[in-house]
Amino acid sequence: MDKYAVIVAGGSGSRMKSDIPKQFLLLAGKPVLMHTIKQFALVDRNIKIVLVLPSEEIAAWESLIEDHSFQIPHSVVAGGATRVESVRNGLDQVPSGSLVAIHDGVRPLVSTKLINISFAQALENGSGVAAVNSKDSIRKIDADTSYNVSRSEYRLMQTPQTFKSDLVKEAFLNYSGDMATDDATIVEKSGHNIVLVEGEYSNLKITTPEDLVIAQALLGNKVVR
Amino acid sequence: MDKYAVIVAGGSGSRMKSDIPKQFLLLAGKPVLMHTIKQFALVDRNIKIVLVLPSEEIAAWESLIEDHSFQIPHSVVAGGATRVESVRNGLDQVPSGSLVAIHDGVRPLVSTKLINISFAQALENGSGVAAVNSKDSIRKIDADTSYNVSRSEYRLMQTPQTFKSDLVKEAFLNYSGDMATDDATIVEKSGHNIVLVEGEYSNLKITTPEDLVIAQALLGNKVVR
Repeated sequence: MDKYAVIVAGGSGSRMKSDIPKQFLLLAGKPVLMHTIKQFALVDRNIKIVLVLPSEEIAAWESLIEDHSFQIPHSVVAGGATRVESVRNGLDQVPSGSLVAIHDGVRPLVSTKLINISFAQALENGSGVAAVNSKDSIRKIDADTSYNVSRSEYRLMQTPQTFKSDLVKEAFLNYSGDMATDDATIVEKSGHNIVLVEGEYSNLKITTPEDLVIAQALLGNKVVR
Repeated sequence: MDKYAVIVAGGSGSRMKSDIPKQFLLLAGKPVLMHTIKQFALVDRNIKIVLVLPSEEIAAWESLIEDHSFQIPHSVVAGGATRVESVRNGLDQVPSGSLVAIHDGVRPLVSTKLINISFAQALENGSGVAAVNSKDSIRKIDADTSYNVSRSEYRLMQTPQTFKSDLVKEAFLNYSGDMATDDATIVEKSGHNIVLVEGEYSNLKITTPEDLVIAQALLGNKVVR
C-alpha cells in the first residue's frame, strides 16, 4: 500500500511568546517543520508528504525552503479554521487504498522507528496510534472535588496516528464537530476500534519556550534517532 | 506554623542504565539531590529538611556532602521497603501543628515560587498539591478497547504535596496499603479533600537518561527559577 504523511502545522506563536509561528522556529539552525518532514523522508523515500499550513504562512514557508535549500519533495495545502478542517484538507490529497500517518508539525523528534511501527500496525489492523503511559499519578477532577485514578488505565496520546486511508477519510467526511481532539477519536466515533502503539517520551510537542530548549538538548545529545 | 520538607529519595538507577542511584547523578556538576534540597533552603532558611534515603546509601551521601562541601543543614532518616514506608519514616520526624511538604528527591527543578504556593495553600486549606494539565489528549484503556476522555477533567500529579502535618501524619498512620500512589491519595483516603495548586512543566521527575539531558538544558538556559 502507498504511504502518505499528512503533517499538520497550524499553530500560532502565542504560547511561545514569539511572532514567528512555532513550526518555523529554529531548532539546531533549521525550522522545526523541516526536522519533522525529514524524519518521514528518512523512513521511506517513497512516502508522499502533504504539509498543511495556514494559507497566510505559505509564502513564508516557500522563502524558508529557499533560504535553507530544503530539498525534500512535499506538497503544500492550505489549512482550515480548525484543526479538524486542516486535517480534512490534507486527507483530500490522499487516495483510498493507501496508508496515511497524521502527524503534528511541531513534533520534530519523532523517531523513524516509531513511524515505521505505526505504519506496520495500521497495515495489519487499520490503525496504529502512538501513545505513552503517564509517568505521573493522575487525578480526575469533578465539580467540587478530585480523586485519584489508576494511571495504568490511561494513555497520553501522541502522533503519528496512522490509519488505512479509507477508514480515516470516511470518518472525517462523516464528522461534523469541530471539537479539539485527536484524530483517533474521530475515527473511533465512526465505529472503529483504535489500536495503540508505544510512543516515545522524547517525541515531544513543541508548544512552549521550554520545549524548544528541551528539543535542542535531546537533538544535541543524540538521545533521539 | 513551622515548615518542614520531607524529601524522599528511594529510587535505584535501573531505569537510568546506571549503577549510581539517580538521586546521586550529577546535574551541572552536583548530585541531583543537592539541587532539590537547595530549592527548599532558598524558600526559607528556617525550613527544616528531612531527607529520606535507603539505609545502604547513607554512607555514600555523607561522602558526597564532604566532596561537594555541601552546607545546607538537614537530617537524614533511613527509608523503608516501599515509598509509603519511606514517607512515613520521614513524617515521624515532623511534629504536629506544623506544615510539611513531601517532595520527590529527583525533582530538582521545582521553583521556589511553587514551593511557596503549596505551603500557602496548605496553611489556608489543609493541603496544597502540585498538578498540571495534560498537554496531550488522554485515552482510557478498557479490557479490549480504549476511548477518548476529556483531558480538561484530569490532572497529572507532581510534588511538592504539602499538608498540615496533623492531617498527613494521621492519614499515614491509618493507611495499611503499600500501593504505589501519591501522598495526596493517602490523605484523601482518610477522608480529606485535596486542594490542587498549579504545578510546572519544568518540574520534571528525573527517571530516564533523557530526563537528565532535559534538566541540564533547562538549568543551563535559566528557564527554571
